[in-house]
Amino acid sequence: MDLNSLYEGIIAGNRRALARGLSWIDEGSVRGKELAHRLFAHTGHARIIGITGAPGVGKSTLVNALALELRKRQNTVGILAVDPSSPYSGGAILGDRIRMQESVDDKGVYMRSLASRGHVGGLSRAAFGAINLLDAAGFDTILVETVGAGQAEVDIMRYAQTVLVVLAPGLGDDIQAIKAGILEIGNVFVVNKSDRDGAELTVRSLKGLLSLSGEASPWTVPIIKTQADRFVGIKELIEAIDQHQVYLREHNLLDNLRYQQAEHILKQSLEDIMVAVQSEMEHQGIWRQSVLDILSGEDSTRKAKTLLTQWLKTSAQGE
Amino acid sequence: MDLNSLYEGIIAGNRRALARGLSWIDEGSVRGKELAHRLFAHTGHARIIGITGAPGVGKSTLVNALALELRKRQNTVGILAVDPSSPYSGGAILGDRIRMQESVDDKGVYMRSLASRGHVGGLSRAAFGAINLLDAAGFDTILVETVGAGQAEVDIMRYAQTVLVVLAPGLGDDIQAIKAGILEIGNVFVVNKSDRDGAELTVRSLKGLLSLSGEASPWTVPIIKTQADRFVGIKELIEAIDQHQVYLREHNLLDNLRYQQAEHILKQSLEDIMVAVQSEMEHQGIWRQSVLDILSGEDSTRKAKTLLTQWLKTSAQGE
Repeated sequence: MDLNSLYEGIIAGNRRALARGLSWIDEGSVRGKELAHRLFAHTGHARIIGITGAPGVGKSTLVNALALELRKRQNTVGILAVDPSSPYSGGAILGDRIRMQESVDDKGVYMRSLASRGHVGGLSRAAFGAINLLDAAGFDTILVETVGAGQAEVDIMRYAQTVLVVLAPGLGDDIQAIKAGILEIGNVFVVNKSDRDGAELTVRSLKGLLSLSGEASPWTVPIIKTQADRFVGIKELIEAIDQHQVYLREHNLLDNLRYQQAEHILKQSLEDIMVAVQSEMEHQGIWRQSVLDILSGEDSTRKAKTLLTQWLKTSAQGE
Repeated sequence: MDLNSLYEGIIAGNRRALARGLSWIDEGSVRGKELAHRLFAHTGHARIIGITGAPGVGKSTLVNALALELRKRQNTVGILAVDPSSPYSGGAILGDRIRMQESVDDKGVYMRSLASRGHVGGLSRAAFGAINLLDAAGFDTILVETVGAGQAEVDIMRYAQTVLVVLAPGLGDDIQAIKAGILEIGNVFVVNKSDRDGAELTVRSLKGLLSLSGEASPWTVPIIKTQADRFVGIKELIEAIDQHQVYLREHNLLDNLRYQQAEHILKQSLEDIMVAVQSEMEHQGIWRQSVLDILSGEDSTRKAKTLLTQWLKTSAQGE
C-alpha cells in the first residue's frame, strides 16, 4: 500500500490500513512520519488519556478495565502501549491480554504496542505519530500506557489531555520514590490494589505531597482507589476523567494542547528537512565534496545555506 | 570582546581570548557555536588524547602526570576535563590540582573544566567546540578527560585520536563492569594503582577480554601498568600513545577523523539553521500564524519549506 491509500484507508476506519500505518511509524521510517503529519488535519476528535506509573502497579489491568467500561458506554477505544523494552511487536502482549477478557472480536477496541527501536527521542516521536493515527481513525478515546517514569515517558504524557498516575501500596515504589516530574504531570492519581495493606497510608502521603506542590491551579487533583482486577473503582475513575475533560474544555486548555501539537509538527518538519538535505546530497554525490570544502576552510554556515537553497529548488521542481 | 577579536586572539595564542571563548562554548550560546565552527579551519595540528574510566581509578592524577611528562618533552598541553556533574566552573578543580604540582606558572599548560548545563547532547557538542578552540590556540597535545562511561562520554571520546581507558584493581569496577562500548573505543588500556592487590588479575582478565573482542585490526591494544601518583609507568604510557599515533598516520586514519569532524560541523550548521529559523520567525511574529495554519489543515512540510525559503532570503540580504 502506498501513502495515499493508507491515508485514505485510515480516515475511512480501515483496520488493515491503520495497522500498516502504525508499523511504518514504529519503524521510524520517513513515510511513517509523513503519514502522521498529513493525518494531523483529521485529528482533534479523540479524548487522549495517558496512564503511567512504576512497573507492577497494575497499569495494564487498569487499562483493560477502563477499556471494557468505556465500551459499555458505546465509546470506541484505541489502546497504545509504549514499551521500549518490549521484545514483542505488533501488539502481541496487549492482544493476548485483552483476548483473555470478554472483549474478543469487539470491533470497537483496537490495541497496539510500540517498541520503536529507534534513536533517542524516536520513541516519543513514534508515540505522537501513533496517537495521531488512532485519532484520525476515529476512536472516541485513546488510552496511552507508558511503562516506568523515564524522560521519554514524561515526554509522551505531554501529548495526553488527561494523565493518570498509578500507584500501588507496598511495592517499594512508595511515595518517596515518585520521580520528580511525575507528580506535576498527574491530573488524576490512582491507588490501585487498594485492598492491600498500606493503601490508606499511600493515599494520605499522596494527599500530603499534593497539598505541598503549591501550584495554584483551579483543578483539584483527585485520588481514586481501585482494584482493577475486580473492576472496583473503575466507574469512579471514569467519572474523574470526565470531570477533568470538562475542566479542560471550560478553561480552553484543549486548544492550548492542540496548538502545542501543531507547533511540534512544524518543528519536526524542519528537522526532517535537515535529514532529507543530507541524504539527497549524498545521493547526488555533493555531500562529500561539501565536507571536503569545510576541511579546506570554507565557512560551514554558508555551506549549509547553499545546500539548503539547492535542495529547496530541487524539491520545488519535484512538486 | 566580539566574535572577531576572540577569533583573532585565540589564533594568536592569547589566553584571555581562549578563556572567554571557552566560556561562550560552555554556556551553549549561539556565538560560542559560531566561534568553534569558524576556528575549525585553524585546527588539525594537535594530538587529541582521550582519557576515560570509572570514578576513582585515578584519571585526574594520571592526566596530571602525563601533562608534566609531556612538558619535559617541550610539548605544550591543553587539558579539558568534561564533567557534567561538576559544581565548579572555569577549571577550578583542575587548576588547583595542577598547581599542587610543580607546573605553577607554566605557560605551556592550560586547563579548563566543562560542565555544560545544556540540553541532552549539549555536553558532547560543547566538548567538541572546546577541543577545536584548544587546537586552534596551538597546543601540541590536548588531553580530554571524561568522568564515567555514559553515552555522552563515549560520544566525546569519538573526537579523540587516541583513547586511553583507565582501570584500577579492586574498585568494584572490575572487568565485568566495563560497559559495552568502552572496550571498543579503547586504543590503550591503563591499569592504574598497579601496586594494589589484584592488579595482575585485572591485567589478565583484560587480556582475555581483548583477545575475545575479535576485531581484526592491525593495531594491538597494549595494556600499561601505572602508579600515576608516583610517576611509575608514565613514560611507557607516552611511548604507547606515540606508537598509536604513528599507527594512525601510517594507516591514514587521522584523515578519516578529520573528515568526520568536518561532516559533524556541517550537520551542526544545518541543525543550527533550524533553530535560527524558529527564533527569527517568532521575532517577526510569523511563527504563531504558521502554527495556526497547520491547525487549519495546511501541510507542515510545505509550511516548513516556505519558512526556510523566507529565512534564507532575509539572511542573504543581511550579508
